[in-house]
Amino acid sequence: MTKILPSYVRGEWWTPENPDGTTAVVDASTGETTHLVSADGLALADVFDYARSVGGPAIARLTFHQRAMKLKAMAQYLNERTARYHELSYATGTTKRDAQVDIDGGISTTFVFSSKGRREMPNDTVYLDGELEGLSRGGTFLGQHIYTSLKGVAVQVNAFNFPVWGMLEKLAPSFLSGLPTVVKPASSTAQLTQAVVADIINSGILPEGSCQLICGSVHNFLDHLGEQDVVAFTGSASTAARLRRHPNVIGGGVRFTAEADSLNYSILGPDATPETPEFELYVKQLVSEMTVKAGQKCTAIRRAIVPREQLQAVADAVAKRVQDRIVVGDPRTDGVTMGPLISSAQRDEVRRSLKSLSAEGRIVLGGLEPFEPVGADFDSGAFVPPTLLTFDDAWTDAPHDVEAFGPVASLLPYRDIDEAIGLAGRGRGSLVGSIVSHDPEVVRALVLGTAPWHGRLLVLDRDDAKESTGHGSPLPHMVHGGPGRAGGGEELGGIRGVLHHMQRTAVQASPQMLTAITNRWTSGSARATEGAHPFSKSLAELKIGDAVVAGPRTVSLEDVEHFADFTGDTFYAHMNEEAAAANPFFPGRVAHGYLIVSFAAGLFVWPDPGPVLANYGLENLRFVTPVSPGDSLTVTLTAKQITPRETDEYGEVRWDADVRNQNDEQVAAYDVLTLVAKEG
Amino acid sequence: MTKILPSYVRGEWWTPENPDGTTAVVDASTGETTHLVSADGLALADVFDYARSVGGPAIARLTFHQRAMKLKAMAQYLNERTARYHELSYATGTTKRDAQVDIDGGISTTFVFSSKGRREMPNDTVYLDGELEGLSRGGTFLGQHIYTSLKGVAVQVNAFNFPVWGMLEKLAPSFLSGLPTVVKPASSTAQLTQAVVADIINSGILPEGSCQLICGSVHNFLDHLGEQDVVAFTGSASTAARLRRHPNVIGGGVRFTAEADSLNYSILGPDATPETPEFELYVKQLVSEMTVKAGQKCTAIRRAIVPREQLQAVADAVAKRVQDRIVVGDPRTDGVTMGPLISSAQRDEVRRSLKSLSAEGRIVLGGLEPFEPVGADFDSGAFVPPTLLTFDDAWTDAPHDVEAFGPVASLLPYRDIDEAIGLAGRGRGSLVGSIVSHDPEVVRALVLGTAPWHGRLLVLDRDDAKESTGHGSPLPHMVHGGPGRAGGGEELGGIRGVLHHMQRTAVQASPQMLTAITNRWTSGSARATEGAHPFSKSLAELKIGDAVVAGPRTVSLEDVEHFADFTGDTFYAHMNEEAAAANPFFPGRVAHGYLIVSFAAGLFVWPDPGPVLANYGLENLRFVTPVSPGDSLTVTLTAKQITPRETDEYGEVRWDADVRNQNDEQVAAYDVLTLVAKEG
Repeated sequence: MTKILPSYVRGEWWTPENPDGTTAVVDASTGETTHLVSADGLALADVFDYARSVGGPAIARLTFHQRAMKLKAMAQYLNERTARYHELSYATGTTKRDAQVDIDGGISTTFVFSSKGRREMPNDTVYLDGELEGLSRGGTFLGQHIYTSLKGVAVQVNAFNFPVWGMLEKLAPSFLSGLPTVVKPASSTAQLTQAVVADIINSGILPEGSCQLICGSVHNFLDHLGEQDVVAFTGSASTAARLRRHPNVIGGGVRFTAEADSLNYSILGPDATPETPEFELYVKQLVSEMTVKAGQKCTAIRRAIVPREQLQAVADAVAKRVQDRIVVGDPRTDGVTMGPLISSAQRDEVRRSLKSLSAEGRIVLGGLEPFEPVGADFDSGAFVPPTLLTFDDAWTDAPHDVEAFGPVASLLPYRDIDEAIGLAGRGRGSLVGSIVSHDPEVVRALVLGTAPWHGRLLVLDRDDAKESTGHGSPLPHMVHGGPGRAGGGEELGGIRGVLHHMQRTAVQASPQMLTAITNRWTSGSARATEGAHPFSKSLAELKIGDAVVAGPRTVSLEDVEHFADFTGDTFYAHMNEEAAAANPFFPGRVAHGYLIVSFAAGLFVWPDPGPVLANYGLENLRFVTPVSPGDSLTVTLTAKQITPRETDEYGEVRWDADVRNQNDEQVAAYDVLTLVAKEG
Repeated sequence: MTKILPSYVRGEWWTPENPDGTTAVVDASTGETTHLVSADGLALADVFDYARSVGGPAIARLTFHQRAMKLKAMAQYLNERTARYHELSYATGTTKRDAQVDIDGGISTTFVFSSKGRREMPNDTVYLDGELEGLSRGGTFLGQHIYTSLKGVAVQVNAFNFPVWGMLEKLAPSFLSGLPTVVKPASSTAQLTQAVVADIINSGILPEGSCQLICGSVHNFLDHLGEQDVVAFTGSASTAARLRRHPNVIGGGVRFTAEADSLNYSILGPDATPETPEFELYVKQLVSEMTVKAGQKCTAIRRAIVPREQLQAVADAVAKRVQDRIVVGDPRTDGVTMGPLISSAQRDEVRRSLKSLSAEGRIVLGGLEPFEPVGADFDSGAFVPPTLLTFDDAWTDAPHDVEAFGPVASLLPYRDIDEAIGLAGRGRGSLVGSIVSHDPEVVRALVLGTAPWHGRLLVLDRDDAKESTGHGSPLPHMVHGGPGRAGGGEELGGIRGVLHHMQRTAVQASPQMLTAITNRWTSGSARATEGAHPFSKSLAELKIGDAVVAGPRTVSLEDVEHFADFTGDTFYAHMNEEAAAANPFFPGRVAHGYLIVSFAAGLFVWPDPGPVLANYGLENLRFVTPVSPGDSLTVTLTAKQITPRETDEYGEVRWDADVRNQNDEQVAAYDVLTLVAKEG
């Protein structure tokens, strides 16, 4: 008997007691049943409650950096097991190269989130958003935006096309944010997702309850979700719309993100005539987007918008490249470069879309006719050849409305840049667009003109072609998602993708309270200036607010002249009394800013070998009041933020430096960045 | 005949031809009809198209700074006309103080947006979001997120309670973002909004088409909106839910933000016993929130959560303060400190809510009984007295579910901090919470515990009380909005509020193309190093990418020792070969970071009097490779971003500084911030 794929819920593997409600999943090339799925009888509310009560608190005990380290360990664990995932992937119709995008791409996305989590988030559980806001003259009432972890569960409802990447690109930011995840893969590729999740569970790296898996259809899962929960949906616009109408989304505060249909464009610039490198890049990318995953990518190019005079040349070049390079068949067969669609149902859907498209345009490559796939039977597998349509009237509806989710693209002619921009917007919001041009003016006009309708834009030319990751690949660093019919959601985008899972709160309080809330010393709150010099303290001893006051030191005219002579910085404001006085900002000759910060360092530094290892940078330096010869400087250096590293014997300490003159006027303000040892 | 309030659409004032469908608006204190409203027969699609085709393009021709200057001029114009707005405000039942919050608060919000627009946005039409992302090893393929203006219209649907503030807090960020606005005030206070909008139109300051006004009900306005349009709704959760179900919101990509019902909490800390200043602050704030605008504020305190042992003391203190301070009546009468509700319909609604509340709790102050308002007749006006309920069981449903939108609050007892946090979350998402405590541990626990359910939190204690703007006042700097039943939207929050009206797009391209798209020089793109020194160029002459390469200069051991001696910075890494070599980052003694940047300045500076006026700061300085004695430094300084000021004869120039050693290894990287004259 064919195996029912087990789900992982509430700490154990689960299959339905009653096998009646199962759905059969078939091999995309052969049509043979590979496995069954069913979530019949699963108590969904209990699954979500388990995530909230077991997973959430366990993740909450970890800092962002500790979560990031676990993601890294998990990615390493999976990286050692990819051979098996690749083997399973063939049954879903994907070639080796397709599977790399999904499997290795998913793991690499996890690595990037781990790295960004450690580099761009504090080693804490609260994330500070933006600058401190001064809300009062006296400085006793300030504002700071913070992000905190939601107390709910992240439910990911995935599409069939990226069973590994789709799961990991959602799991990684969600876990970093502090939210436990329930994975709901598409049934047709659930076997692969299940294999990866099983390894995640077996590894024991993530805390129990932070990742559960439901194989099979779940009805009304939104009934059990509320204002602390997040649903990240990838799939069709119609399903997205149905879910959006649920009362818990409409009025119950469930955070719902969707990545849905998208008729992505690729524009060939008017400069990119057939003899330019860009023309070839355009055709190469278009064929790649049509054929990778047999075009079953929400980011694939659906609308190829080209200068009217190049329409034929592009069509010919695409046809030639497809003929030369693309071999359709069972991906397990040598030489096959494009597999079948995921299922015959999907093929029927593509055929319906192709009929709508061809009613308004003309099929110039591929189409509906049967052909002989390599190593497979046309009638058993879900095969569709690479198919290109051309349209004389680029403004007709079908190419902008009908998404044939397969190896299908529409070629549309434009007359000028404005028309190209207008056509791009006709998609009413897309995930991605690409511009292939080497003319900066053309690129600027097309990027700014089409950006309001797009979540991502790629510019391809001879300069970045070698390193470009291509039109269709969302990167973990960059936002993935688009407005309008693309779903209106945002995923990825580095830490942005983490913050989408958290709650932003504007906090208004006194400096002292903000220091207590944020673990970052806030100007105006208490300092500890007694006792040992803070540079003599290791991370184990140092506390936020530990400070040293040093000075005063008088800056003489000789100092200024000597500094100018020594460094070569003889800028007129330091050297020429008349010219300096004529300047709108200076009373006369003033000390160099670099002199001020150098003297300040001379005052605050503790010279002996000790836990402070290096000054690796400076941030937000502002020179506030000019320093005239004869002024004397006092500096206060205060430990502002302490970030021990998970993997090193040291960490970062950010210091607040406040330099004042003899009248207590602020002369300079900045953050000093140092590396400090954990132990003394 | 009573006047029909005209709308301003498509460049002219408009009233319906057929006066049958009008709604009468009455004076809140006297019940007399003051004006009529109707939008019967108005062609909404044309109004929106006018905004898109006339207003949008006119705003798009202005930079962010130019838009900000227009907002400032507009705010100044309105500021001279507030007497009339105050006069009109009385009929809506508001006291002088209430009206200040609305009228003067709205104008001050506009000033803040003008100021932030100039300080925090570039003088351009594209806003850069976050850092450049390195997407490739070779550096030829990079990512940058940008925000561009939508091409649609912002429709604001406002509540009756803040006819001026509600309009301006939405108009200011929308205009800054580049979106034209259509204002739809609540009918009951439309007269005041209309007066202000009429002045905005008459001033001629904003470009025609950037602000239209519709007085009267509009049905199905969402039928005419799409993926480039924004609806900012303030009102009831039920209306928000109805609008959210519209197909153009569900699947058409209309951006819909809501500020809806909210059962905001205020927690008295366990430390804040009756003899502390915080106890008095708590009671004072609670009474203020109950009575300002007669409690008709979406941010008012509905749930006063206090230690069980203080429940009676708080109830008594509130009753005493209400008795001592609050005089209910017609706000035109001397001595009146609280007016009526907006309408008898609203009073009936509050009465219904009070009945639900009192079924589970006990009215200890105020209530449903008739009383004698000062200078008014109880039966003609919509009067409700300040009303307080207490609940023995704090977990009962009504106080967490029923929002009596009037001078009504529920007093709920808690046992410990965890219970207080749990009760706060029972509101299922609120706009604002406040914590009154002087104990940093209590504050930290309550802020972090309740933040996931709140858009804003205020901490009140003896330190910030004098300058605190209070629980109920959204500030333009801080996010206004809350998750869950509060609507799930965000407004204000400084530039965040502007960006909510724009589209974020991830752009992937070569450095050269990113420079062309963003008007910011991107590392890796071309520099112009020939010709005059860039410091000799005024803003009129300087171009992005203008650069100077200077050096090399060798750093000797004598230089390091001399610098240490001169500045006093004798940190061991510069002075002690053995200790420096023992440090994990240094090969031996190294040059001071401050020495490197000082020498670099000595190399790149052009000393003569000229257009460069001052170096006002430094940003993102990182020391990348240590500099050993004998190394020689070369610096390249490149004009990175140019921001002429609208109001001064100079502007900001940001320079990219790249210091390298004799092996072309980067030693230091930073941005130098200067002020440069517009003309030479």
